[in-house]
Amino acid sequence: MPFTPGNHSFFFRPVPKISDLIGASIQHKLDFKTKPKGSLGRLEEIALHIGSIQNTLEPKLEKPTLFIFAADHGIAQEGVSAYPQEVTYQMVLNFLHGGAAANVLARQGNIDLEIIDAGVNFDFGVPEGLINQKVGKGTKNFSKEPAMTELELLECLKRGKELAKNNYAEGTNLLAFGEMGIANTSSSSLLTHLLTGTPLENCVGSGTGLSPKGIQNKVFVLQKSLDRFHQDFPSPGLMDVFRNFGGFEILMMAGAMLEAGSLGMTLVVDGFISSSAFLCAYYIEPGILDYTLFSHLSEERGHIFQLSYLKKRPLLELGLRLGEGTGALLSIPLIRSSLAILNEMASFDSAGVSQKEGK
Amino acid sequence: MPFTPGNHSFFFRPVPKISDLIGASIQHKLDFKTKPKGSLGRLEEIALHIGSIQNTLEPKLEKPTLFIFAADHGIAQEGVSAYPQEVTYQMVLNFLHGGAAANVLARQGNIDLEIIDAGVNFDFGVPEGLINQKVGKGTKNFSKEPAMTELELLECLKRGKELAKNNYAEGTNLLAFGEMGIANTSSSSLLTHLLTGTPLENCVGSGTGLSPKGIQNKVFVLQKSLDRFHQDFPSPGLMDVFRNFGGFEILMMAGAMLEAGSLGMTLVVDGFISSSAFLCAYYIEPGILDYTLFSHLSEERGHIFQLSYLKKRPLLELGLRLGEGTGALLSIPLIRSSLAILNEMASFDSAGVSQKEGK
Repeated sequence: MPFTPGNHSFFFRPVPKISDLIGASIQHKLDFKTKPKGSLGRLEEIALHIGSIQNTLEPKLEKPTLFIFAADHGIAQEGVSAYPQEVTYQMVLNFLHGGAAANVLARQGNIDLEIIDAGVNFDFGVPEGLINQKVGKGTKNFSKEPAMTELELLECLKRGKELAKNNYAEGTNLLAFGEMGIANTSSSSLLTHLLTGTPLENCVGSGTGLSPKGIQNKVFVLQKSLDRFHQDFPSPGLMDVFRNFGGFEILMMAGAMLEAGSLGMTLVVDGFISSSAFLCAYYIEPGILDYTLFSHLSEERGHIFQLSYLKKRPLLELGLRLGEGTGALLSIPLIRSSLAILNEMASFDSAGVSQKEGK
Repeated sequence: MPFTPGNHSFFFRPVPKISDLIGASIQHKLDFKTKPKGSLGRLEEIALHIGSIQNTLEPKLEKPTLFIFAADHGIAQEGVSAYPQEVTYQMVLNFLHGGAAANVLARQGNIDLEIIDAGVNFDFGVPEGLINQKVGKGTKNFSKEPAMTELELLECLKRGKELAKNNYAEGTNLLAFGEMGIANTSSSSLLTHLLTGTPLENCVGSGTGLSPKGIQNKVFVLQKSLDRFHQDFPSPGLMDVFRNFGGFEILMMAGAMLEAGSLGMTLVVDGFISSSAFLCAYYIEPGILDYTLFSHLSEERGHIFQLSYLKKRPLLELGLRLGEGTGALLSIPLIRSSLAILNEMASFDSAGVSQKEGK
């Protein structure tokens, strides 16, 4: 691979390093709760992690929010998705009316939803609840030409940054990331291939439900796109990768992730698409990895390779492959519970419970 | 193994078979939600499962409740636990004061807790919130003699049955099961060995945190107990297994599980100890398996062998090994979300979203 993470500052401030001074105190607090040491497994890990991010013995979730970035993809013209492109805008309307899976799970988990039009191929007018950050009406068909211009790429990153900044200003300290965009697994497959070095075939899955024959066609189209790219960009930079294969929603999400990390928020990543956005952000500033929880393992083929590359274990494994941030939403009640354990459980002393014997 | 599940009716009504007539309608409803078919993975499985149990297209959780059964074990005298026996009663007081992990998670998940003294070696008096069903002040030391009499065994099953019946009468339709009892992993190891045929060593883990040497001693004590049993009961019946190695909390839980199944409630099993109770119940009436969700995979060594024997996959894998029903409590928000998906999501028709193309 010609790329290495970091040293690509663009216009982002570096993500601050998390202090490891508080860690020992949080661990001590956890160890004297009325339970055998370590017996709450990953709940304890999360409490330690978020306590360290927030640099406090009493970490809290404030106004946890899911951003759903929506956009269209020119590559949809090549028949790489099981659904027609119009589903992107129809699903945005479904989000606005509260009928999608993400709405249901956000209500269950008491999580704020923000729906962002990053570049859907549809004129929404000014419907209530939609954040208009449309960079274009879908990307170009990247089997023939770069998906977007450099200017559009920078616009995506900048707008994502602004969105996270505003959200932080409103009091949110945990930001989760989901998306909607017909054909965006194709975009993610190529980003994953180029940024992790995973063979292309391993990065290509059935998306919304392609048949084996449909997957074959998708691999063919993506290989062709890759050939076109290598021909047009014999020694590509990171920007070239992003603008050739990124989606507007993916790169706006990456911008939001970078800003959220800079501001010390906790990031919760969903499945294959958001992990692709995360990889883009990670290549710009690897420091954000320390601020990030990976919520679930998606059924989509490439996801496990992204997580292996980042050496991260997800919290849930529920066979999800829907996107929209559904896995991230499901993980937030677990995160909330882990903080409640740290904040609310009695200690051996306070409860008058005897401690372990030397056996 | 000399035992086979079923045909051991004791005094329980058989668990009714779940009608498979509604299943196709629930699946149809799920398939026309605005998402690719099957893309919500195990959430869809749970919705289908509980819809079938409740025989409705609109399943709901009513007053979900966790029973925590507490009792002491004579085998604790043999040094098989890392904690002293007094921790059982101290933790019961901690439950009553709201300071234990189970309390925190129950509050987070909006789940009712019922704390039941099935046989703790302590005089509680009549503290508020404790359900007194004490069958004895702990079991006998089963390395030397049967843990309990036949009468005590029957008393456990009967009282468990009454508890579930009362809870059902109060409107609960989902019952989760947790426990507290120093040394109860020893009891569970032997029940698991005898009921699943798993080699004893694979059924023995570190419990609350034994050292490798402590585990060695535990295996030695349990092997000795098993030898004593085979000598005293050359051709044992199922009752003999239960009363030799059961705990009061384990068998009262088994009784409650059987009654909950008979009444068509949904059962949520926690980790190693509750799965041992489940195995006892299952041997009496295998039909309850259809009413049961296994919430998580415990870190305690024997749990995975219990689940393999039952051919069941747990929902969560978070490295928990605390008991108290903590895994069951964490799974209930997921269960609630899966029912909300079935009940609240829009359909393709109602949302005006286009369906899949033939690719």
